Amino acid sequence: MTLPTDRDHGADTSVRVTVALDVLGGDDGPEVVADAALQVLDQQSGVDLILVGPTDLTHTLAADRGIADRVEYAAAGSALAMDEDPVRAIRTRPDVSVQVAAELVRNQRAQASVSVGDTGGVLAAATLTIGRLEGVTRAAVAVVVPAVHHSVVLLDVGGTVDATPELLAQFANSGRAFAVALGLSDDPAVGLLTIGSEPGKGDALRRLAHEEFLDLNLRYVGPVEGDDVALGGIADVIVTDGFTGNVVLKALEGAALNTAEAISRRYADPEPALEVGRSFAVGRHAGAILLGIKGVSVVGHGASSAAEIAAYVALAVRGVRSDLVARIADQLAVSDAGKR
Amino acid sequence: MTLPTDRDHGADTSVRVTVALDVLGGDDGPEVVADAALQVLDQQSGVDLILVGPTDLTHTLAADRGIADRVEYAAAGSALAMDEDPVRAIRTRPDVSVQVAAELVRNQRAQASVSVGDTGGVLAAATLTIGRLEGVTRAAVAVVVPAVHHSVVLLDVGGTVDATPELLAQFANSGRAFAVALGLSDDPAVGLLTIGSEPGKGDALRRLAHEEFLDLNLRYVGPVEGDDVALGGIADVIVTDGFTGNVVLKALEGAALNTAEAISRRYADPEPALEVGRSFAVGRHAGAILLGIKGVSVVGHGASSAAEIAAYVALAVRGVRSDLVARIADQLAVSDAGKR
Repeated sequence: MTLPTDRDHGADTSVRVTVALDVLGGDDGPEVVADAALQVLDQQSGVDLILVGPTDLTHTLAADRGIADRVEYAAAGSALAMDEDPVRAIRTRPDVSVQVAAELVRNQRAQASVSVGDTGGVLAAATLTIGRLEGVTRAAVAVVVPAVHHSVVLLDVGGTVDATPELLAQFANSGRAFAVALGLSDDPAVGLLTIGSEPGKGDALRRLAHEEFLDLNLRYVGPVEGDDVALGGIADVIVTDGFTGNVVLKALEGAALNTAEAISRRYADPEPALEVGRSFAVGRHAGAILLGIKGVSVVGHGASSAAEIAAYVALAVRGVRSDLVARIADQLAVSDAGKR
Repeated sequence: MTLPTDRDHGADTSVRVTVALDVLGGDDGPEVVADAALQVLDQQSGVDLILVGPTDLTHTLAADRGIADRVEYAAAGSALAMDEDPVRAIRTRPDVSVQVAAELVRNQRAQASVSVGDTGGVLAAATLTIGRLEGVTRAAVAVVVPAVHHSVVLLDVGGTVDATPELLAQFANSGRAFAVALGLSDDPAVGLLTIGSEPGKGDALRRLAHEEFLDLNLRYVGPVEGDDVALGGIADVIVTDGFTGNVVLKALEGAALNTAEAISRRYADPEPALEVGRSFAVGRHAGAILLGIKGVSVVGHGASSAAEIAAYVALAVRGVRSDLVARIADQLAVSDAGKR
């Protein structure tokens, strides 16, 4: 994922940012996250890290990498288990690592949290502990999809599976603010993911959402189709429910890998094709950011590499420096205030 | 799209098949469809064609290609307009070309119909005129998606946007029968498209459908995710509602083109990459087949090439020779008769 540099659109690299980095919950163990911490300290300026995990573990991981004195520590007991109900776990075990990370953001010891644990757990911890912005009934999970013409913000990709038109309208506002914060556009075009490009097409949810979107204070470009997500060019922000968004995100991932694999067999050197395929498998390699909470929180795939986790930290820092939370609050307020 | 040869699984190439070919409704005019007719006659054995369209037009098109005496003709007035309500058009203008083609199948002058017109129009004509099989409340639209490990049947991709668990169960049965008819597997694995691979995940529709699927007389492999569509290997048949299926189909198309385009820039000769990308853009290049009606009907993208339209005819012929309709009826009956 190529993001605009921090110099674009006024994000100030002189602002120091502290990120709570959850070392637990990854598929390949805490070592990968610790490797990411080293990369962040070496490569990203003005970023401080708090390693969240059992302190004997985090101290050892940091010492092994020679960064013991360059990071802070916050004690956590364990990760969420994959089959565990996140809300119950957070309420009964306050030392779960995603919860400790969220607590650091709430206490303003950190400005952002990053985790490669379960998305539902990060979402639950952020919602219960950091809290939602006014006018937000559910936070959205957003990703940036690399497209031929232009990267596209896709949301929701898994936060809310049974959405309402009103919720999709909140997502439209949050997604627009995120696209501005990223520097994708000063006035992002927002599309509603559906089937067929005529307004009357789609299911009941989409027909009602289309009417809602017409009233929002943003540049709504109407219905867009599945191919517009990967090709880009029509909308900078594409809004859908969490079920469809998650299926689409995984479909894009599978199609990128499948297409690259087939192409790689047509060339003497398969590696460039496979490399592009991996980089376009966004479900696995792009950090997802929570939109609509009173803080910045990024969650990545459990199987992420150290470089990918370092990129999630960069995305979180970008969110802080570009005033993402305030931008979302402002956008919700202006859309509430009246029609465009 | 590579399909198993007609020799597999007992499809008998000595059986002559007549296909009603709608020359109207394509984006690039009737000439492309007429070019396809020529290719079919030259390359496919035992296939007879009835050209459906205004007869002065179809006679001229056939004469220009030297096939005037090798095809039959059926008079039609016009194509459905893109913004026209298909059901109303078919009821008020019985000479609409998709309707004339469906009528030929109902009268048994043809065993199958092929069109590159609007999917909704073909579906409406087939449903109203050819009729649904017993136990089918809505016909499904199915495509074959080329995957790394194994091609996958995906349905529904646009027939029914607001589905029920019972309808998804019908699609599972129809899709299984289609996969057997294609020779993809003697006992196809059927998956339910959802998010997360645990049975409790997904939206309300998917949770209920999962329970329904457990009772079907077929090899249900449980929930599958979006990446399983393009990667294959887990399920031979992937079932979803028409909204999600259509969005996924288009997403796969966009991702294939996007990935191929990016890869093509990494090699001196871009063409092999672009060629694979185009062939994997299934929304544009694979014929969709209607499942659950008392006949065989294939509909392709309006912008299809002559070679692609000829492939749709081959798919329709394959459906007739492999007794697709009877297989679907049988599968619906055994699934109705009791648990596996």
